[in-house]
Parts: sequence; C-alpha cells; structure tokens
Amino acid sequence: MKLYGYFRSSAAFRVRIALNLKKLDYESAFIHLRRGDQRQPGFLGVNPLGLVPAIETDDTVLTQSLPIIEYLDETYPSPPLLPPDAKDRARVRALAAIVACDIHPINNLRVLRYLLRRLGHDEAAVETWYNHWIAEGFTALEQLLAGDNRTGRFCHGNTPGLADIVLVPQVFNAHRYQSLDLAPYPTIVRIYRTCLELAPFAAAHPDRQPDREP
Amino acid sequence: MKLYGYFRSSAAFRVRIALNLKKLDYESAFIHLRRGDQRQPGFLGVNPLGLVPAIETDDTVLTQSLPIIEYLDETYPSPPLLPPDAKDRARVRALAAIVACDIHPINNLRVLRYLLRRLGHDEAAVETWYNHWIAEGFTALEQLLAGDNRTGRFCHGNTPGLADIVLVPQVFNAHRYQSLDLAPYPTIVRIYRTCLELAPFAAAHPDRQPDREP
Repeated sequence: MKLYGYFRSSAAFRVRIALNLKKLDYESAFIHLRRGDQRQPGFLGVNPLGLVPAIETDDTVLTQSLPIIEYLDETYPSPPLLPPDAKDRARVRALAAIVACDIHPINNLRVLRYLLRRLGHDEAAVETWYNHWIAEGFTALEQLLAGDNRTGRFCHGNTPGLADIVLVPQVFNAHRYQSLDLAPYPTIVRIYRTCLELAPFAAAHPDRQPDREP
Repeated sequence: MKLYGYFRSSAAFRVRIALNLKKLDYESAFIHLRRGDQRQPGFLGVNPLGLVPAIETDDTVLTQSLPIIEYLDETYPSPPLLPPDAKDRARVRALAAIVACDIHPINNLRVLRYLLRRLGHDEAAVETWYNHWIAEGFTALEQLLAGDNRTGRFCHGNTPGLADIVLVPQVFNAHRYQSLDLAPYPTIVRIYRTCLELAPFAAAHPDRQPDREP
C-alpha cells in the first residue's frame, strides 16, 4: 500500500493517523502541493484528479480521506474506528463531517488562493476568513462534545476513532495564524492534547514527516 | 421519524431521496433558512446547531446529511445505497465526497453571504465563484465517471445509490445562475436525467415540496 501525501495536507494527516492506528505498513510518496507536483504527469498517471491523499493498492487507487478511512476500517477491522451501534456511528460520522465538510473545504489552499489572487484580498482578510470558519465549526463541535455523555477521553468514549482522526489535523490548522483564541473550546483542546500523547497521532504529525519544511 | 428540512437545501434534498428510495414514511418540519427559522428557539431545542437536515427519532437527533444516509442504509438495508465490495464502496463514497466536500460547502448560503456582506462583492463576483467550484468538481467527477467501467446507468452500476443521491441536488444547483455550461459533463447530465425519471428522486425535488417558493 502506498500513500501519496504532503506533510501539511490535513486530509493526508488524517489518513496517516488511521494507518498508524491500524498498525498498517505503507510506503510514502511525497507530492509537494505548493510547488505543484500534483499537476505533474507522474502523479496524474496515478490520480488523474491531482489530489492528495490517494492510496494505491495492487489493483486500484482510492481517493478522498474519509472514504479511504472507511475503507481501511472495513478491510482491517481492528481496532475499530467507528462504534458498533448505528446511532453512535451516525454521531461519530457527524462530528467528523462538521470538520470535513463545514470547516476544512472552505479553508483549503485553493480557496485561500482564490481570495488572494482572483479577488485581490490581502493576507489580513484571508486570516479573518480562515479563523471565522474554524470558530463557526468549533462552536458547534464543542457544544456537541461537551453536551453529550458519550464523549469520553476521546470524541466518542475512551478509545480514539474517526472523529478524533479528523479533529486533530483541524486543531493543528487552527494554530496557523496564532490569532484564533481556542479558550472557548476546552473539550476540543483537551481531546487534541490527549490524542497527541498517543504514538499513532504523534507519528502522523506534519512536523514528523520526511518531507516537512520550516 | 421526522425530517427537519427546507425545500432548497441540497443536503435536505439528499436525505429526502434516500428516505424515498428506502420507502420510509416520515413526517416533515419545514425550517425556512432564508427567514432564519434555524436560529429560532423552537428548532434550536431540537438541534442546537441550527442546521438542516436533522432527523428526529424516538430517542435521538441525527445531523449531517451523509452520516444520516449511512445511518439509514445500516438500519434499513434494502435497497442498499452502497455496493457490497469495500473498494467499490470507497469509490462510491469518494464520488459523493467530491460533491459533499469539494463543491457544496464552498457554495453554501453562509459562504455566499460572507462574500456579499462582509467582503462586499457583487452578485456577478459571487456567480463567478459559484460556477468556478462547480466546474472544478464536475471536471473531476466527469473524468471518474466516464473513465471507469463500473459506471452504468447510474454512478455505480445500474441501480441508484449514495453517489447519485448526492449528485442530483448538485446538478440542480448548477442551474442556479443559468450561466454554467454543462456540455463538458455529458455523463453527469445523463445520470442526472436518468435519476429524475425515477419517482424517489422526482418526489424529493425542491419544486415538489410543500414549502416551495417561486
């Protein structure tokens, strides 16, 4: 199994955590997104969409981080990343979707570039935009986590799962501008810290990747 | 089961299609998003996040369209909305994610309002933005659909499933400004038309909802 990723891509960060939690060996290919490697023929031959993360197996290429993680969970069931009960699974997937659908896509590199280059905004306007969508999503997420007794040491109970996998890279991103106050989100910050004490999360951190840059 | 929705919300549109495909009876509550019903105490008592769609069951409230649809598929397995093979499931979920993560959130009402009200752009700039992200996503989706022999009458094979459920409301949205040329996406348009010939899709259409407006 080969993972095409980039140290700073939070979608790739999610997949690295899932692979580590499952203790799966994988080979890495580094696609430098800021330099444009994703649009070079080499990578387009693997994934014509030019997106990371992508997982290459013997006979197929899988794309999109959450579908990849669901695939890993179905194919390598131990340890499970989703709880057994259908309503609990819906809860965990909804927590993950608040980050993966309601925050992350709006703050993605290509969107920030559109604001800067095509709409002519300055970095300060982009920073306000970036922090705004994280604050919107984290307000919702904090409420769902703090107000539900199914929340434990992790987002759901006392073992890490899909929601934690998606949360950690987003909290890492929230530090980008150092101007977002995380004090209103104590449950989120607590879970983030708890996760990073675990080897599968710590080893997946952007600062620990071979392709990292200052 | 009660669905909190809004005729024009494409996330609610997805859930209506899934409920219809499963032939599940449900009660409807209409939350007028443009008027701000989602921020009124009545609805916030049900879903503190103020988001539609939400599904209320006897003992819980489920949010986020894709987690709701996965829940329905796990709880009411017939007809299945995902194929049995794990790699095929990953494909269908990835097709759905291109719309649900890479297109729809960036064109959501709250984002368009931010561009208009906070960044002071005019409707023409918003129209260009809106069409840009659909074109980006549809280019990827068309390639994945046209270049894979698992595509059939529908996104995956010859029965409708999760990817079709997510695709149809997005194609409906693509008509919003009538300035987006859909000719480069013949497979997408073909599948959209095929779906709308089916009663579960047609009955879920915004124009057929009791809360519709001109």
